[in-house]
Amino acid sequence: MDLKTGIEYIESLKRLNPTVYAYGEKIDDVTESVHLAPHVNAASLTYELAHRPDYEDLMTTTSHLTGKKINRFTHIHQSTDDLIKKVKMLRMIAQQTGSCFQRCVGFDGINAVYSTTYEMDQELGTDYHQRFTDYLKYIQENDYMVAGSMTDTKGDRGKKPHQQEDPDQYVHVVERNEKGVVLRGAKAHQTGMVNSHEMLIMPTVALGEEDKDYAIACAIPVDAEGVVHIFGRQTNDSRRLEGVIDQGNIQYGIVGGESLTILDNVFVPWERVFMCGEAQFAGMMVERFACYHRQNYGGCKGGVSDVITGATAQMAEYNGVAKASHVKDKITEMIHLTETLYGGSIACSADGHKTASGGYLVNPLLANVVKQNVTRLIYEICRLSHDVAGGFIGTLPSERDFNNEDTAAYLEKYFRGSCKYTTEERVRMARLVENMTGGTALAESMHGAGSPQAQRVMILRQGNLQHKTALARKLAGIDKK
Amino acid sequence: MDLKTGIEYIESLKRLNPTVYAYGEKIDDVTESVHLAPHVNAASLTYELAHRPDYEDLMTTTSHLTGKKINRFTHIHQSTDDLIKKVKMLRMIAQQTGSCFQRCVGFDGINAVYSTTYEMDQELGTDYHQRFTDYLKYIQENDYMVAGSMTDTKGDRGKKPHQQEDPDQYVHVVERNEKGVVLRGAKAHQTGMVNSHEMLIMPTVALGEEDKDYAIACAIPVDAEGVVHIFGRQTNDSRRLEGVIDQGNIQYGIVGGESLTILDNVFVPWERVFMCGEAQFAGMMVERFACYHRQNYGGCKGGVSDVITGATAQMAEYNGVAKASHVKDKITEMIHLTETLYGGSIACSADGHKTASGGYLVNPLLANVVKQNVTRLIYEICRLSHDVAGGFIGTLPSERDFNNEDTAAYLEKYFRGSCKYTTEERVRMARLVENMTGGTALAESMHGAGSPQAQRVMILRQGNLQHKTALARKLAGIDKK
Amino acid sequence: MDLKTGIEYIESLKRLNPTVYAYGEKIDDVTESVHLAPHVNAASLTYELAHRPDYEDLMTTTSHLTGKKINRFTHIHQSTDDLIKKVKMLRMIAQQTGSCFQRCVGFDGINAVYSTTYEMDQELGTDYHQRFTDYLKYIQENDYMVAGSMTDTKGDRGKKPHQQEDPDQYVHVVERNEKGVVLRGAKAHQTGMVNSHEMLIMPTVALGEEDKDYAIACAIPVDAEGVVHIFGRQTNDSRRLEGVIDQGNIQYGIVGGESLTILDNVFVPWERVFMCGEAQFAGMMVERFACYHRQNYGGCKGGVSDVITGATAQMAEYNGVAKASHVKDKITEMIHLTETLYGGSIACSADGHKTASGGYLVNPLLANVVKQNVTRLIYEICRLSHDVAGGFIGTLPSERDFNNEDTAAYLEKYFRGSCKYTTEERVRMARLVENMTGGTALAESMHGAGSPQAQRVMILRQGNLQHKTALARKLAGIDKK
Amino acid sequence: MDLKTGIEYIESLKRLNPTVYAYGEKIDDVTESVHLAPHVNAASLTYELAHRPDYEDLMTTTSHLTGKKINRFTHIHQSTDDLIKKVKMLRMIAQQTGSCFQRCVGFDGINAVYSTTYEMDQELGTDYHQRFTDYLKYIQENDYMVAGSMTDTKGDRGKKPHQQEDPDQYVHVVERNEKGVVLRGAKAHQTGMVNSHEMLIMPTVALGEEDKDYAIACAIPVDAEGVVHIFGRQTNDSRRLEGVIDQGNIQYGIVGGESLTILDNVFVPWERVFMCGEAQFAGMMVERFACYHRQNYGGCKGGVSDVITGATAQMAEYNGVAKASHVKDKITEMIHLTETLYGGSIACSADGHKTASGGYLVNPLLANVVKQNVTRLIYEICRLSHDVAGGFIGTLPSERDFNNEDTAAYLEKYFRGSCKYTTEERVRMARLVENMTGGTALAESMHGAGSPQAQRVMILRQGNLQHKTALARKLAGIDKK
Repeated sequence: MDLKTGIEYIESLKRLNPTVYAYGEKIDDVTESVHLAPHVNAASLTYELAHRPDYEDLMTTTSHLTGKKINRFTHIHQSTDDLIKKVKMLRMIAQQTGSCFQRCVGFDGINAVYSTTYEMDQELGTDYHQRFTDYLKYIQENDYMVAGSMTDTKGDRGKKPHQQEDPDQYVHVVERNEKGVVLRGAKAHQTGMVNSHEMLIMPTVALGEEDKDYAIACAIPVDAEGVVHIFGRQTNDSRRLEGVIDQGNIQYGIVGGESLTILDNVFVPWERVFMCGEAQFAGMMVERFACYHRQNYGGCKGGVSDVITGATAQMAEYNGVAKASHVKDKITEMIHLTETLYGGSIACSADGHKTASGGYLVNPLLANVVKQNVTRLIYEICRLSHDVAGGFIGTLPSERDFNNEDTAAYLEKYFRGSCKYTTEERVRMARLVENMTGGTALAESMHGAGSPQAQRVMILRQGNLQHKTALARKLAGIDKK
Repeated sequence: MDLKTGIEYIESLKRLNPTVYAYGEKIDDVTESVHLAPHVNAASLTYELAHRPDYEDLMTTTSHLTGKKINRFTHIHQSTDDLIKKVKMLRMIAQQTGSCFQRCVGFDGINAVYSTTYEMDQELGTDYHQRFTDYLKYIQENDYMVAGSMTDTKGDRGKKPHQQEDPDQYVHVVERNEKGVVLRGAKAHQTGMVNSHEMLIMPTVALGEEDKDYAIACAIPVDAEGVVHIFGRQTNDSRRLEGVIDQGNIQYGIVGGESLTILDNVFVPWERVFMCGEAQFAGMMVERFACYHRQNYGGCKGGVSDVITGATAQMAEYNGVAKASHVKDKITEMIHLTETLYGGSIACSADGHKTASGGYLVNPLLANVVKQNVTRLIYEICRLSHDVAGGFIGTLPSERDFNNEDTAAYLEKYFRGSCKYTTEERVRMARLVENMTGGTALAESMHGAGSPQAQRVMILRQGNLQHKTALARKLAGIDKK
Repeated sequence: MDLKTGIEYIESLKRLNPTVYAYGEKIDDVTESVHLAPHVNAASLTYELAHRPDYEDLMTTTSHLTGKKINRFTHIHQSTDDLIKKVKMLRMIAQQTGSCFQRCVGFDGINAVYSTTYEMDQELGTDYHQRFTDYLKYIQENDYMVAGSMTDTKGDRGKKPHQQEDPDQYVHVVERNEKGVVLRGAKAHQTGMVNSHEMLIMPTVALGEEDKDYAIACAIPVDAEGVVHIFGRQTNDSRRLEGVIDQGNIQYGIVGGESLTILDNVFVPWERVFMCGEAQFAGMMVERFACYHRQNYGGCKGGVSDVITGATAQMAEYNGVAKASHVKDKITEMIHLTETLYGGSIACSADGHKTASGGYLVNPLLANVVKQNVTRLIYEICRLSHDVAGGFIGTLPSERDFNNEDTAAYLEKYFRGSCKYTTEERVRMARLVENMTGGTALAESMHGAGSPQAQRVMILRQGNLQHKTALARKLAGIDKK
Repeated sequence: MDLKTGIEYIESLKRLNPTVYAYGEKIDDVTESVHLAPHVNAASLTYELAHRPDYEDLMTTTSHLTGKKINRFTHIHQSTDDLIKKVKMLRMIAQQTGSCFQRCVGFDGINAVYSTTYEMDQELGTDYHQRFTDYLKYIQENDYMVAGSMTDTKGDRGKKPHQQEDPDQYVHVVERNEKGVVLRGAKAHQTGMVNSHEMLIMPTVALGEEDKDYAIACAIPVDAEGVVHIFGRQTNDSRRLEGVIDQGNIQYGIVGGESLTILDNVFVPWERVFMCGEAQFAGMMVERFACYHRQNYGGCKGGVSDVITGATAQMAEYNGVAKASHVKDKITEMIHLTETLYGGSIACSADGHKTASGGYLVNPLLANVVKQNVTRLIYEICRLSHDVAGGFIGTLPSERDFNNEDTAAYLEKYFRGSCKYTTEERVRMARLVENMTGGTALAESMHGAGSPQAQRVMILRQGNLQHKTALARKLAGIDKK
């Protein structure tokens, strides 16, 4: 099968029948919902760009399984160059959407499951890797979008899965039989889930023997029986019902369109099960997924920050202050911070290594460092954007007032900045800045791919402190050799 | 007349008839509008608290003009103790509203105009101060809410008023006659304007002789002929139309409820004119207003940050992580940053001084330092809040999904954190965090009372660099004496 | 007795006979030692300035015990105004010394002991407060310099005093008899100790009943039998042996001149003992001392930062870049940070309160906030200074090369900046910057008055989190009343 | 000729006869001077490590000119892999020296001159590239250490070379003849110069036609006639005269050992001249050198920070607080910041590209970002180190007091931390922290490879703002296509 175009992707979604709720209503067609469409648009672009010759090198590659041309988002990284291209692809797409385009979670999921199942089989004599390879061919063949499905709802964060009062706070196996397993629980913050074809379930934390029922990895169609998706709301989402301009990013929305996805006794056949009870490998799968996923943030958020920087510079021009030295200095700082993030993603990719399976993994320490920086620097980038853009991003009247004939002329007159530009473009740009620098967008930079403390735990563990103290003791003349 | 109660304030607004537009419609009664009511509620509390015995010392004082008991918001500061009480009052009210309560702008306006008119009269032989004193008695007598009205729309920020292509980008006098003056222009970001009784117009920048038509200070009823208010929208404002919980702060809204207020050939009688053409005094009036207004931010934002800190600590408890060392450290940091802001406001007050008029002014350098810190530290406080509160503040489903019987049970089950608490309270608190840490709230901390660069210009000018270089030269042995 | 002049202070030191070691040698006269003299000079200025009419209001006050005029450094604060004057005095002196002048430690000690002994006596029926009042009169009468002596050497920081392998790691009572007590242990980081008249011993941490032998407060002459002082070295201290200019601050040295002071079985008569075994009051004494001492840092470090800022601005002028916008912005930031620190000290003073003894105490929360900010902002101020001053502060040849006829002309020619100034003044200023922004000066800002974590513990404890969470619950509609 | 060993390098220096002054005296043998020897030791290690099999891949490579094995420091980068290996080599060496080892400046110089002369010849028909290639073979053949010599003394920074009152503030050609040119001026901050074999002169700024006499690049032996080196002093340098332990880093000193190198009418034959008057290529040479040099800082400072982190963690262990959560968090932060720097250097290398000459250049934007981060993060790393290490790094008595029998026992007893370790090792480690986190070390991080503003200018210029504003306009619906 050929690579899907954007339109073919959308058509393929129409043929699915997932159970989706949003804003108190059941959604019949995710591609037609005013709330879901912007996210469908963003994902659609990941298919469409694969057909553009100038992006072919980034967007497509050759399957190491079939030798056929595939969309990169279904690829297993075969080199550090693949890892670097992933980052460049993410930045390029984010520059065009100004928002999350959702494909990386599944991309990272297949790479994490691929190498972990290989090592699991090597050690335990299981056959998960072969099952997964078959599944992967199916995905590549059909050019499917896979939602990576990791984060459990977790209940009381101070307790392990089996200590929870409600055992369903982590997805777990409630029944096994000849044909497969039955699962219960829910996955939170499921980016792009409602407009994916498949979901790839993974555990959410390293697990001990007492939590082995929670050691489950498997693939499920998004419209399987018992799967219910409840879509989450975002900052200023209701503006989609009111008009166009006030949305800011008029085509693609903010962030990724997350859902709570409930597995209410969902059956999964054995050929789609890639871990079941091997608790000792949960940690590896989680950690590898986390590393791949943290790698991304200097790419996609780098691209998003490029747009914020551009929007901010444009606002300065509209306001007549583009040449003020303090404005140029703030724009410079925004570029500096963006490139610090991007550089981090390139670094963990260039310093990646081959796993036993042949798939490549990023440098874990550097990947965690990137994401940790994202939880700080994006806030500073947005702060600088607010500084330069001006206070009216917080007090602009509604689009409807611009269309009300009693008020239109006043607004047209008084919201004009430099006379070289129209009022409308200044307002549009202000709404874009507002859209990209507020609530949901910030929270996503903070918690996407794991909360800051998760990264710090990894950074300390990977920091090889023993080597560093030995260096110091030698230089101080304490250790003589 | 006695001090108004909260209800009497609301009733008094119903007797006014301002021309107000919001969301494409004309608003007949600002106290009944779903969009405006939260702001009316917040302002109302400033009247109501004046009747509570435990806040009497902060909320009320004695008029130096009439010897009568007045609401502190209509007072001219008579001591540094008055300045300190102002800050403590602001923090206390903000702790109760979790949002802007709008009264400080007019409060700062009357104090700036009071001392400036005094010095203007001393130097120029005008009689503005007497006019203004009469006006102030009228305000105190009627316990009116005054909107301080300073910020012009400014057009091209790189140009002075008279250089603008559209001369109305700054409010100016278009006609003078025996009875008074006629004004044209618009004031932007008018906090609390639509639910005030009066507006106090002031110039927005220091002015040269060529801009003397822009040197205008005066008072106008908010419902005077030719005055049109267009209300600005805020982050997630449309949620007010959808339910209760998703608003977060269910009673008071976010920030102050700002409007663009257009003066379309508005007549002002001479007895309400307090500056008209004295361009050389525009700078003093603007600067004093700015100092008073920047003083506030460690008070009101201190109170707002107290609520954010409390909400964040409560979220940690709901999530089961209140005792984690990194969580406690982040809460500690939020307190530290909040008190840094509050301390700044106390300091500029304690170090205030008496002006020629008898009114007290804050230390200008320290007041600018407070506001500059607000433009940074509030962002960091919000960042820390997001960190601790968790990613679901960005992905929570709509209140309507919680009420939809198809999804209610799932959400109730899976959004439960620690079993000691209900799902509803966890969700309510998440919505409060979302409300207080996003778009409009951040932009207000950045630009309210002037943009960061405005403070930096003042900080350098007030920093007495010559004294500092002399100290250094002496210590280095360069200047011998 | 009259207030000592600077010279009388120095003469009084010559009459003492403390056991002092420094750089491997015994020091016979601290006022003549090349290493100690700069610190004697700085302390001497605190006596000298008390005789200057323009500083009289800051430097002197009236004893509440005797009604006589005293140096403020021996005063018990009688009002918040006294607390504010303390801060202003510290900043003013630091502007003149560019370094620590050592008097605040004893000043804070007498204030902490004064109010704590009062409350101890009230609760326990002891007579410590009367003994201390008599001692204080003696100090005021003789205008003595008192070294506040708190920090024990502490051994293993993870263990309490009685858990230490070496019980002497905290100063403790090893014998009691009719006439007094005998102490053993050592006090570290003793600022100004070697050029003081008296030392005021206090415990260093809150103590439990099992540590009651460590609950000791008392006064001892610095030259008492068994007292041995070993002077600590500082950054670039050896330059004092090599010439003048390379010292930077040519008269006053860096920081305070700290010593390790050993109490090797030192006898203290009962009339000089102010706590002996009342472990339950150790915490109060320590905490009050800490609050007073943390209050200082926005004053003295504010003054030091004024000098650094001035030196940096002067360097920019020498380098020919004083008008560059990025340079002005950095100078602005240095002023901003300095005033943030200073404002913090003013705030905790203005918000102080009366203790049962009549002495005034600062606001504990705000005082800890000041010091916490010092541990960060001073580093940033020094970083900015390095940025503007230029790399040659790290690579300048020795003063001796400037005096060597083979190299003098080359250096004179090539270290010239703007031709408006001599090479020598540029070099002197670079050395001053180097002196004030490096090692010891930074470490002192970090650890003086307690390490950062000590402040954080206090900030969280004082932060009244319960009140804040209640505010949030109310606004979210969780707590209904 | 074979690769030199460390000892052979030192012996080769003894055969040179440079004119060197330091601390007011002429230095006869740089390898024997107490002040210079630590820097010689560090450079010597770059020769020695080339003979260790485990570092062979990093330390050596194959000359693209001769096909022979060479020390990497004399190599022209032939791939991005070479650029990455450079960074890894720098970090590895810095971990062993804890200080600058001086070789990168010349390394970067030869790479910048190599590609620039190629393009110059292409455009102008000159033969500089061949001359330089011959010179490079000579360097590789002899395994020489080359000092990169760029920074002019610059006089008034507000003026261009020809505008200076003293024309010698930038090195320039004062005479040309058949055999060569004569130069005058001085180069400042010459890292490793006094223990190099050769110096490679380059211009220090982009130049206009009016400054063409300043467009000079050439090579000169360090002991050529007319060359005078005056060595700069560093923080605590005099301690080398007093003992061992107080030096901290007992073998290698701090930073790089910088000199002011004067060219007092120095003759250079044409075969060693690589630019002479081609002002239009000065900018390219300067910018390329700057990019290569800024690339380094995440490598070498990364290695230095590894040592600081190790020393700090070790101090925590000595103090008995290694397990405290706030201590672990600070160590984590130090690792995070260090890896942020290192990642930046890897990124600009991995994203490098081939120049027309065949030599590889780093990504200029990312290289400037690395260095900009170094000017901030190193200060924060040192601040955290001070925090954890404890205040006694600023107040420790002199090594001589530890050796004085009157005081030795006291110090031994009272400077003991945890009883698991000796006092001496705790003191040694404190001195190492002091050495690595103070004055000169900080100033070097700030100004080495150019001051922060130099990087900001490049970051803005390389930031492609036009592309970014176009992205934003498209997403806001302003630009339709």
